[in-house]
Amino acid sequence: MAAPGRRPRDRIVFSAAQLIRRDGVAATGLRDVVEHAGAPRGSLQHYFPGGKEQLVNEAVEWAGGYAGGRIAWFVAGMRRPSPGRLFAAMVQQWLDDFSANDFQAGCPVAAATVDCADGVESTRAAASAAFQAWRAPIADALRDMGVPARRAASTATLMLSALEGAILIARAEHDLRALQVVARELGPMLDGLVDPAS
Amino acid sequence: MAAPGRRPRDRIVFSAAQLIRRDGVAATGLRDVVEHAGAPRGSLQHYFPGGKEQLVNEAVEWAGGYAGGRIAWFVAGMRRPSPGRLFAAMVQQWLDDFSANDFQAGCPVAAATVDCADGVESTRAAASAAFQAWRAPIADALRDMGVPARRAASTATLMLSALEGAILIARAEHDLRALQVVARELGPMLDGLVDPAS
Repeated sequence: MAAPGRRPRDRIVFSAAQLIRRDGVAATGLRDVVEHAGAPRGSLQHYFPGGKEQLVNEAVEWAGGYAGGRIAWFVAGMRRPSPGRLFAAMVQQWLDDFSANDFQAGCPVAAATVDCADGVESTRAAASAAFQAWRAPIADALRDMGVPARRAASTATLMLSALEGAILIARAEHDLRALQVVARELGPMLDGLVDPAS
Repeated sequence: MAAPGRRPRDRIVFSAAQLIRRDGVAATGLRDVVEHAGAPRGSLQHYFPGGKEQLVNEAVEWAGGYAGGRIAWFVAGMRRPSPGRLFAAMVQQWLDDFSANDFQAGCPVAAATVDCADGVESTRAAASAAFQAWRAPIADALRDMGVPARRAASTATLMLSALEGAILIARAEHDLRALQVVARELGPMLDGLVDPAS
């Protein structure tokens, strides 16, 4: 994921996201976050008066915004954008990530959902918002590529679902195959959705 | 999920799976599991000398076996089995589950992966085995339905990925839509894989 900003507050949110995606929410301690961020312990109370819940929610929100922001960046880098190529780029980011960190860390939004969906309503809502922040730019990009408007949002949901599931499976298996497979299998199907008249 | 068996040991494993899929692994305490199972506290040490790690791993293993076992059951209930119908049945189980429990609990294998993939190697391996126990009967069923043998395993991975991701998104959103969408979008694509000569 992106390098953290310079501001201590941003560094703390970024560090929280990194530890959540490695160990889950429950096992991530505030002390570890502060240490990871290289921030003074007192800064937590200063920036996050709502405690761990606020920090977790902001980390999840940050992750959703980050993932959503990547979509336009992926599309901008393509000579001939297509749904399958966009999905391949989304998958490639995780292939690179897992290759670099040896499957150490998965998706923080998934972690927040698994650990908090039933117990912490504000975190469930943050995870929901993060998925939406990720899905909306995908749907926009699909429309621009010629996917019929009535299919764009649901196709974006399918892409996100397949990616999130493959992230889980690849991480459990310590093997990139699940990610490679979904890109290869789903890509042509996605490209088949483009209206030839578009 | 299935009703627990009568044996105390089975009940404990089942209860562990239920609590893990609700709260994640880290937040699931042994005391809660014993209470949920209606088992005497001493039985934990008796049946699970390896402690929480052993119990979590057995719960994950149980979940993989349970999910894998459902596949043949789904296919047996279809007049004209097809990949899309199998996927719809897998999704329907989660639609029913979420409708019955108000999104209270997700997939225990996903929870184990998120919480333990980096920290507890034996649990990561159990999650990997559970995904395999789930995927293998899907691939077998797909081959029986006429999906070319070289595509069966990867199509099974795509189906599992899309389902796992949609479970996460639906649970975060407290909305069945993601599950309904992946069934509707992916189903026809899956049916298109069947060799017409089969």
